Amino acid sequence: MANKYRIALDAMGGDHGLEVTVPAALKALAAHADIELILVGDEAQIHDALAKHKTTLSERLQIKIASQVVAMDESPTSALKNKKDSSMRVAINLVKEGIADAAVSAGNTGALMATARFVLKMLPGIDRPAICTVLPSIDGHTHMLDLGANVDSSAEHLYQFALMGSELAKAIDDIEAPKVGLLNIGQEEIKGNEQVKAAHALLAKSPLNYIGYVEGDDIYLGDVDVVVCDGFVGNVALKNSEGVAKMIATLLKEGFKRNLLTKLAGLIALPVLTRFRRQVDPRSYNGASLLGLRGIVVKSHGGADSFAFANAIGIARTEIIKKVPQRIDKQIEALLAARVEA
Amino acid sequence: MANKYRIALDAMGGDHGLEVTVPAALKALAAHADIELILVGDEAQIHDALAKHKTTLSERLQIKIASQVVAMDESPTSALKNKKDSSMRVAINLVKEGIADAAVSAGNTGALMATARFVLKMLPGIDRPAICTVLPSIDGHTHMLDLGANVDSSAEHLYQFALMGSELAKAIDDIEAPKVGLLNIGQEEIKGNEQVKAAHALLAKSPLNYIGYVEGDDIYLGDVDVVVCDGFVGNVALKNSEGVAKMIATLLKEGFKRNLLTKLAGLIALPVLTRFRRQVDPRSYNGASLLGLRGIVVKSHGGADSFAFANAIGIARTEIIKKVPQRIDKQIEALLAARVEA
Repeated sequence: MANKYRIALDAMGGDHGLEVTVPAALKALAAHADIELILVGDEAQIHDALAKHKTTLSERLQIKIASQVVAMDESPTSALKNKKDSSMRVAINLVKEGIADAAVSAGNTGALMATARFVLKMLPGIDRPAICTVLPSIDGHTHMLDLGANVDSSAEHLYQFALMGSELAKAIDDIEAPKVGLLNIGQEEIKGNEQVKAAHALLAKSPLNYIGYVEGDDIYLGDVDVVVCDGFVGNVALKNSEGVAKMIATLLKEGFKRNLLTKLAGLIALPVLTRFRRQVDPRSYNGASLLGLRGIVVKSHGGADSFAFANAIGIARTEIIKKVPQRIDKQIEALLAARVEA
Repeated sequence: MANKYRIALDAMGGDHGLEVTVPAALKALAAHADIELILVGDEAQIHDALAKHKTTLSERLQIKIASQVVAMDESPTSALKNKKDSSMRVAINLVKEGIADAAVSAGNTGALMATARFVLKMLPGIDRPAICTVLPSIDGHTHMLDLGANVDSSAEHLYQFALMGSELAKAIDDIEAPKVGLLNIGQEEIKGNEQVKAAHALLAKSPLNYIGYVEGDDIYLGDVDVVVCDGFVGNVALKNSEGVAKMIATLLKEGFKRNLLTKLAGLIALPVLTRFRRQVDPRSYNGASLLGLRGIVVKSHGGADSFAFANAIGIARTEIIKKVPQRIDKQIEALLAARVEA
């Protein structure tokens, strides 16, 4: 069959490895008729996992053997040096070699970033990869980057994140001029740190649709398509949101479990609550894009279940269809040139 | 009457001024028989506002005239220089003069910080004030600081925040050794920026009950009493939480409004939903402490309503009863000495 989108999965990565990646692969194959998946990892273990799901290999589901696994707490340096045949590395090699169009891994972020950068290299004009994810918002969604790949980002890095995020939003959401906001604090004098102020000056002169500073609540409530921030801030904000959402879900559940009457009310409200839970389910947003590389790499949450990991596979598919790295490459040169002239 | 706790209110501050501060004062007086309030601001306007609420001055409700108001977008420098008779400044003067035991303002954070610092001065051993608030968590609450008073905090500043936050938690929650965590990202190699790593080293040697790094979700889910971070990160996290909570509330409300059946379900679930809303209502947590000063100043959210502003008055009362600045002063010297010896 022609025109399949081929995605390599780091089948051994993440907190749960094959227990999650194999059923997720099957879910993704069922959901998308136009993808082929390559399970990268230990052959015997993959066959065992497939057997558990009463599945065998097929034209759309292949194996690529890799003898090692990157541990979840392994340092990027160690992964690069000692794990040259890891499932993570081999999956990314497949992208480099053009055998796969994208790689998806739930393995540790530091090792994945370092490996992807080492194997695929950066696009010209981009210094460092950034992690970008989609978050739900009151009237749609918001792209946010960086989410932890870079700490102590310079103004120049924040500027590059903005360029990449804008291009991603254009590609994914089919909008012409995504609204780009720079995450900052307060409407008052005590406003921003040095890097943010300097990035603001760069962005104000850029050809992007830069709408200025946004605050932490605008990610979910505001009229902004792309929110740009340092990785430290972005990662805290992301985890923080997960924490609030989990707390709220727990308190709501406890509220309905208090006594017989509230349990009855909960039963009656169940369809509404289920629909609501689906709307804010972080699993539906699982899959962060590593932007700035010469190839597509999607990072799944380490603790993802098969529903969430299948979602990350879906994101990789969309980026292949939309040719995200090629689009970023094409635009970045023009945008960087425009900045120099400005 | 003896032993009243006297609180000066910046009656003109905030987005809504007297519309909020006067009814909030009345609510607080009704809730706490042991407080006296001093409304600081324009005499005629205050009398008008009191008349609207069919109230007059009393032994427990006095006026202190101030002829100016600090604008919500006024710079700290301008407030210090040009607004020496502002309601904000005069309220803080009352604390300095020992006429009031605490001041509460919904005025702009920058000006409030600068004025409080200028008038009251810092406690010895503390370089800069920090803003600390209480956030709901799954099994109680968490104190978090700094929330925007300081950006680009050094390791030394983060260390001082930890000392002050720990002492506040001891006083407010009556616990002996509050668990103090340092906000950071990831369990992996790409871990923390330079200041956080250096602060970690300082805290590990301190006599505090330092439990190490915590992440963004631990604020709401974790077993930690005090979360310490730079003001930029803290402010983003706080606003971010507000955004998530508002988005969730809106989606839930919309879910119940979809059709006749869901509306009926909503009616039946109403007692549970109301109770839940009260649990996570950010207004219940309104009132942030400015720590490190030689006096008590509580900052209310600028957009607070009278319920929320009354809550901030309640927080000022608690800090008076618990003698928070005196406690911080007493402990800080010992703790700083212990650090030097270590």
